[in-house]
Amino acid sequence: MIASRMIPKIRSGSAIRKMFEEGNRLKKIYGDDKVYDFSLGNPDLEPPKEVSDALKELADNPTPGMHGYMSNSGYESTRAAIAKKRGDEAGMEIDPGAVCMTVGAACAMNDVLHSLLDEGDEVIVLCPYFMEYNSYIENHGGKVVRVNTSDDFMPDIKAIEAAITDRTKAIIINSPNNPSGVVYPAELLSSLNDMLKSKDHVIHVISDEPYIDLVYDGMTVPPVLDYIDNLVICFSWSKSLSLPGERIGYTLVSPKNEDYEDLTQAIVYSHRTLGSVNAPAIWQKVVEKSLYAKVDVANYEKRRDLLYSNIVDAGFTAVKPNGALYIFMKTPDGLTDEEFQDICHDYNILLVPGKSFSGEGYCRLAFCVSETTIRNSREAFFAVGKKLGLN
Amino acid sequence: MIASRMIPKIRSGSAIRKMFEEGNRLKKIYGDDKVYDFSLGNPDLEPPKEVSDALKELADNPTPGMHGYMSNSGYESTRAAIAKKRGDEAGMEIDPGAVCMTVGAACAMNDVLHSLLDEGDEVIVLCPYFMEYNSYIENHGGKVVRVNTSDDFMPDIKAIEAAITDRTKAIIINSPNNPSGVVYPAELLSSLNDMLKSKDHVIHVISDEPYIDLVYDGMTVPPVLDYIDNLVICFSWSKSLSLPGERIGYTLVSPKNEDYEDLTQAIVYSHRTLGSVNAPAIWQKVVEKSLYAKVDVANYEKRRDLLYSNIVDAGFTAVKPNGALYIFMKTPDGLTDEEFQDICHDYNILLVPGKSFSGEGYCRLAFCVSETTIRNSREAFFAVGKKLGLN
Repeated sequence: MIASRMIPKIRSGSAIRKMFEEGNRLKKIYGDDKVYDFSLGNPDLEPPKEVSDALKELADNPTPGMHGYMSNSGYESTRAAIAKKRGDEAGMEIDPGAVCMTVGAACAMNDVLHSLLDEGDEVIVLCPYFMEYNSYIENHGGKVVRVNTSDDFMPDIKAIEAAITDRTKAIIINSPNNPSGVVYPAELLSSLNDMLKSKDHVIHVISDEPYIDLVYDGMTVPPVLDYIDNLVICFSWSKSLSLPGERIGYTLVSPKNEDYEDLTQAIVYSHRTLGSVNAPAIWQKVVEKSLYAKVDVANYEKRRDLLYSNIVDAGFTAVKPNGALYIFMKTPDGLTDEEFQDICHDYNILLVPGKSFSGEGYCRLAFCVSETTIRNSREAFFAVGKKLGLN
Repeated sequence: MIASRMIPKIRSGSAIRKMFEEGNRLKKIYGDDKVYDFSLGNPDLEPPKEVSDALKELADNPTPGMHGYMSNSGYESTRAAIAKKRGDEAGMEIDPGAVCMTVGAACAMNDVLHSLLDEGDEVIVLCPYFMEYNSYIENHGGKVVRVNTSDDFMPDIKAIEAAITDRTKAIIINSPNNPSGVVYPAELLSSLNDMLKSKDHVIHVISDEPYIDLVYDGMTVPPVLDYIDNLVICFSWSKSLSLPGERIGYTLVSPKNEDYEDLTQAIVYSHRTLGSVNAPAIWQKVVEKSLYAKVDVANYEKRRDLLYSNIVDAGFTAVKPNGALYIFMKTPDGLTDEEFQDICHDYNILLVPGKSFSGEGYCRLAFCVSETTIRNSREAFFAVGKKLGLN
């Protein structure tokens, strides 16, 4: 008697959530230090000092109206600071009106897709991808169109072009990528833009950027604003400032976007009526005061290195990720992802099969877990590798 | 090139928002104390001390993971505390699983409607009503069915019954009511329940309760859980604790709801995939610590009395509201709401015509403005009354 489309969703649940519960069950049996739960991308580092200082300052010095309504798009000063930062990075002028503060990136994506999609419009996603995109697209009448990436998980421009129809409204890109960890180079963004601009209708590029500050090996992420014209950015501080529970992010429409005027207004309207109304007031102020701070990225890099070594030293194969919080390892030949998952499970290693990202033949491991867990897991990886004749 | 359904929305904008901008324009010309802006329901009292103390305590004593993800439905301890409070009030046992913490009531309503509605399902609203309901319903494929209330703005059970079809999925009730300020008595809720239960399919009652703690004249709001069976509550602390900018509220499915199991799960799924993911972590903790606190209701009552006196003493007619933050005054005979609005505007009184609430023949005045503004407006009301021959 609830909505019929909800029935299969609540019956199946989220595979990742189920792993999370299984992890907790195993920990109760074997103890915390003997279960190697790499299933959940829950950033476990604490926010940087700038964040706790800013929060303390605001809480210790309450001012009238600080918890009141503001414009639906957020505080002008916060939006201006973000517009300046992103503009400086890309070497362009960005008006604060380009920015709408949101309840994290998931909210931002829903606001954008609600603004763009008519019933039956198509949105291209690049496999493997964060499967919640399916819901975000379908919530607003859109149709998910899956396009495979190349062997190194980079967008395949020809394959994308082949998937475009007159109903293609947008493509979602996600760099640094969940689950593969790859960072798209500037030339690739340029080629994507050229191809999209050659079409006879506007195709928006939605850049989902929760991991933009989590890059390693001295790499920098090319400013997407410089390379893509019909662009909308969906950003979140969940990972950059380790604030996933507080729900703060933004949308930013590129000044070069051909639908700039309509789209900026539509996003604010969607944001209001889809129920967020505005992003949490205090977190807007905190991020404004912490705009140039970052979580301890070197710590994540160290963990990536440790987990990557465990995997390859034990005889498995993986592309070393340059960003984000995941290693997308190859499932050993002759096994399905689920069979491999089951074997790992026998050794208390929890990972998520590629199916959960439309990326069969791989499994995802999140390295945002304690260094001790990663170190302790080394033996288990070797044991699995030995069982499979890989070491 | 954005979604075609968005075009008329962004062209028309929100009437209430436009009044807000007009208020700011007039204040610049005439000065803050000579513009009587009753257009916006923006609670202007500060949160009670319990809230600022709790926020300060949390900010001063950071604990690991306090800004991290929790279950999509929110902290177990917060949900348990709410379940206990609402259960105690209604004299029933409520499981924490009945509660999902949300990003305010607007988010809660979207989560619930997304969970309930199939394309073309009908939702009954009682005129006059908060017009954002239209968006919340249409966002998820629903159809708005308007039913008039009686002369004193109470639900008319026979009229509601006449509007029910086999596609009626829900009815939204809002007591204390925006814009009329009426509080529905227990017998009326009982009659509504009896009538709905006599139908051969489940019709959910969505109780939108942002004003439940704002009642005057020693009145109490009957616990809706006692009187309605197929009930979902959408609550917000925006008004009770004066935290509208922070976005914190909840849904609560009655244990008596025939769809309890499916609906509680569907709401959490909707909450996650519509983009909220979870309610802001720190505000969940703050409201848990401030659960029995309230904004200074006596202050609002005093302002209501002052504004009501201004209106009736100047010769106008209004039902004295027992709750919420608004007086819904009758438009004087012989004038349209817009004509009356224009005359008031000439005297720097800003109000919202009934059309914005599907309640023609009336205008809404919000009394959550400073006492000085209300006192200063008295002369202006008398001048308008005099012009219209009412005093």
